[in-house]
Amino acid sequence: MDIKTIEWKKNAIKIIDQTKLPLKLEYIYIRDLKVLWQAIRAMKIRGAPALGAAAGLGIYLGIKNSKAKTFSQFQKELERVVAYLASSRPTARNLFWALERMRGIVLKNRNCCISEIKKLLFKEANRIIKEERQMCRKMGNYGAKLIKNKDTVLTICNAGLLATIDYGTALGVIYKAHEEGKNIKVFACETRPILQGARLTTWELKRKGIDVTLICDSMAATLMKQGKIDKVIAGADRIAQNGDTANKIGTYNLAVLARYHKIPFYIAAPHSTFDLRIKSGKDIPIEQRDKSEVTSLFFKSPIAPPNVKVFNPAFDVTPNELITAIITERGIIHPPYSKNIGRMMRIK
Amino acid sequence: MDIKTIEWKKNAIKIIDQTKLPLKLEYIYIRDLKVLWQAIRAMKIRGAPALGAAAGLGIYLGIKNSKAKTFSQFQKELERVVAYLASSRPTARNLFWALERMRGIVLKNRNCCISEIKKLLFKEANRIIKEERQMCRKMGNYGAKLIKNKDTVLTICNAGLLATIDYGTALGVIYKAHEEGKNIKVFACETRPILQGARLTTWELKRKGIDVTLICDSMAATLMKQGKIDKVIAGADRIAQNGDTANKIGTYNLAVLARYHKIPFYIAAPHSTFDLRIKSGKDIPIEQRDKSEVTSLFFKSPIAPPNVKVFNPAFDVTPNELITAIITERGIIHPPYSKNIGRMMRIK
Repeated sequence: MDIKTIEWKKNAIKIIDQTKLPLKLEYIYIRDLKVLWQAIRAMKIRGAPALGAAAGLGIYLGIKNSKAKTFSQFQKELERVVAYLASSRPTARNLFWALERMRGIVLKNRNCCISEIKKLLFKEANRIIKEERQMCRKMGNYGAKLIKNKDTVLTICNAGLLATIDYGTALGVIYKAHEEGKNIKVFACETRPILQGARLTTWELKRKGIDVTLICDSMAATLMKQGKIDKVIAGADRIAQNGDTANKIGTYNLAVLARYHKIPFYIAAPHSTFDLRIKSGKDIPIEQRDKSEVTSLFFKSPIAPPNVKVFNPAFDVTPNELITAIITERGIIHPPYSKNIGRMMRIK
Repeated sequence: MDIKTIEWKKNAIKIIDQTKLPLKLEYIYIRDLKVLWQAIRAMKIRGAPALGAAAGLGIYLGIKNSKAKTFSQFQKELERVVAYLASSRPTARNLFWALERMRGIVLKNRNCCISEIKKLLFKEANRIIKEERQMCRKMGNYGAKLIKNKDTVLTICNAGLLATIDYGTALGVIYKAHEEGKNIKVFACETRPILQGARLTTWELKRKGIDVTLICDSMAATLMKQGKIDKVIAGADRIAQNGDTANKIGTYNLAVLARYHKIPFYIAAPHSTFDLRIKSGKDIPIEQRDKSEVTSLFFKSPIAPPNVKVFNPAFDVTPNELITAIITERGIIHPPYSKNIGRMMRIK
C-alpha cells in the first residue's frame, strides 16, 4: 500500500492525521482554512517539507472561493491567507518558502483574470508537491552513497514519508540504501515531547521492513559509547547561510554526542529548507510550545505536578561545526558551509 | 509535613508508593517479602540509598518469623532471603551493601540465640536508616559549598528524599544550599522512561519551595548552550574504584554535554554506593528493563507500534574523566579518583 502524507483530493486537502499514528492510519479531508491552521498547529501534519506542501495547498484552499473582482482586492485576500498560514508555526523554513512561492505566482500573473490566477495557484501547489517528491528521491540517491552495508543509523523525530509526501529526507536516505540492498539497522529516538520517533518513525520503518529499535532520547549516548552507532542522520526545519541547522529539539544534543564519540552527523534537507537571508542559527525563530506537551504524555494522563514550570522549545539549533555534511537534492554540501551552501543553492 | 520514604511501622515496612506520585501521596505497608521484591522491581520504592534501607528492613522481614532451631538452619534461611532480595534489581550498590552488612551481623553473632540475632538484625536495619539520614545531611553540608548564590542546577532522575530516607543526595546538596539562604534554580530532566524527574523531583522540590522547571531530557543541551546551567548534579547507583559511575540512564548523556559546554558535573553519593571491588564501569551490571516502559508512557496508553524492538537499559555509566568531583558524606573527592576514592573510603 502506497500512502501519501498530503494531497489534493475530493476538492479538499487530504492528510494523514499523524496524531492518530501508530494506532490508526486515518485520513482527514480539510475544506476550511482554519481547520488546516489547527491541523498544522496540532501537528496532525508536520515535518518541514510536508508543511511546505500544506502551505501551497493552503493558499489555494484559502482563495479558491474568493469573490474578488479586482486584482488588488484579490491580492489583499491572498495576503490575509499568507499571514494566517504563516502564523501557524514559526520555525520550518519550507512553510514560508512555499507561501512566498505561491505569492510569486500571483504577482507574476497580475495581468491574468482572477479565475486564471486561481488555476495557476492550484498548479503551483501541485508542482511544489511533485518537486518535493522528486527532491526526496534525489536526496536519497546522494545520501545513500554515505551509507555502507551493515551500517547502524541513529535518527531523531520523523524525517520520513510522514514529514514529506511519500519518501522522506533523513529516512529517504535510509530507504534508498535499503533499496540498494544494503543491510541497515536504525535506532529511532522517541523524541519527546510529541514522540514522533516512537509513533511515526518506527511505524514507517517497520512498514518498509527496515530493522528499527526504539530508544528514549537519553539512551543515545550509551549506544554511541558502546560503538553501536555508525552514523547519525537528522532532517532540518531551517538551515541558515552558515549551515547552522534548526531541527526538532534534541538534535543538537545528538550532534554534541556524535562529535564526542567521533561519529559522523548528517543533516538531510531539500533546498526549500535553506534560508539564505539568515546568517546564523541565532536568527532562527524557535517555537515555544504549550507546557502540557511535557507535563502530560502525548496529551493523556498527567505525569507532573500541576502548575510545574516547564521549558518546551520545539526545536534547537545545531551549529555548523558539528555537522559533518548536509545532504540535499543537489548534492552533498561539505564545510566550509558559508561558502559551499551559497554555491550549491545558486546552482539551477 | 515531614515525610519518610521508608521506615518500620506497625510491624511492617512502610513505604511511599512512588508510582502514585505526583498525583497521590500514598503509603503502603509491606508484610510479605514477595510484595517487597515486587515493590522494588516495580519501582514503588527506588533510589540507591532507599534500596539499601529496603534491603536492611527486607532481611528482617524475611527472617523475623523464622522457625529455625539451629544457627545453620537460620543461616540457610538468611541466605535464601539475601539471594531473593539481591535478585530484585542488579545495579544499585547500596542494596548489596546493605545485604552484606545484614549478613555480617548474623555471622558475627553466630553464638547468640536466634531470637537475639533477629533483634540485632532489626537494630542493624534501623541503624542503616539512621546512618543514611545522617550521611545525606553531611553530604549536603559538603556539597552546598560548591553551590553559589543564584546558581542554576540541572539534575536527572530523583536523587532526593524519595531516593533516600528524607533528604537526598544530589537534591540534598540543593536543599542545604537553599537552607543556607542561597537562591537556587533547578532544571529537572523528566528522565524517561519512568519519569522520576517529572513525577518525583519536581514534586519534592516544589514541596520545599524551590524554583524548579521541568524539561524533556533532550532539552538539556539547549539550556547549556544558552548559558542557563551553572552546575549539573546527579546521584549514583554504583561507583567503581576508578570513579566510573553508574546512574539512571541519561546521566552519561548529561556528563558529555556538560564537558562540551564546560559546565561542572558532580556526582553525590554516600560511601555505601561505592563498590571498591569493581575496577571500572565496565564491570557494573546494567539492568535491562521491560520494553513496555518505553512503548507505553508510564504504563498507560501505547505510543509505539506493537512488537517494535526496544533498547531499555535502566542505567548508564559515566566515565570518571567526565566527573568534576564526587560529593560524599566524608568530603568531596577530586580526581585522580583511583587514588582518592580508596583513600577517602578507607578513612573511618
